[in-house]
Amino acid sequence: MEQITLKVEGMSCNHCVSAVEGNVGKMAGVESVKVDLQDGNVDIRYDSEQVTLNEIKDTIEDQGYDVA
Amino acid sequence: MEQITLKVEGMSCNHCVSAVEGNVGKMAGVESVKVDLQDGNVDIRYDSEQVTLNEIKDTIEDQGYDVA
Repeated sequence: MEQITLKVEGMSCNHCVSAVEGNVGKMAGVESVKVDLQDGNVDIRYDSEQVTLNEIKDTIEDQGYDVA
Repeated sequence: MEQITLKVEGMSCNHCVSAVEGNVGKMAGVESVKVDLQDGNVDIRYDSEQVTLNEIKDTIEDQGYDVA
């Protein structure tokens, strides 16, 4: 299991939190995802044998946010 | 048919636009609702015999925003 904190720009409200947590959270191989809205941090635990970091980043960017 | 522009604080992104337009727009008596995110304006056309301005404001506030 991998653990990473991504810096994500553009999340401005609780709807954004739900969009990121909901969409990343339902990816196969993602065990947990937690957004800190104030800091713009997204903590993710995932199984790198099931899902790649790039796929996770793509999912966040597909919601309209920038991964730093 | 009445026409009003409300000043709404706290809308920060397109999710907020959807929350306001979606929830106000489905109220009986509301003919149209359009959010200008940049200015924080919400233009509403409604039939005051079917829905009151206070009911509309309550719906916006229920989404977590302040009507000025």
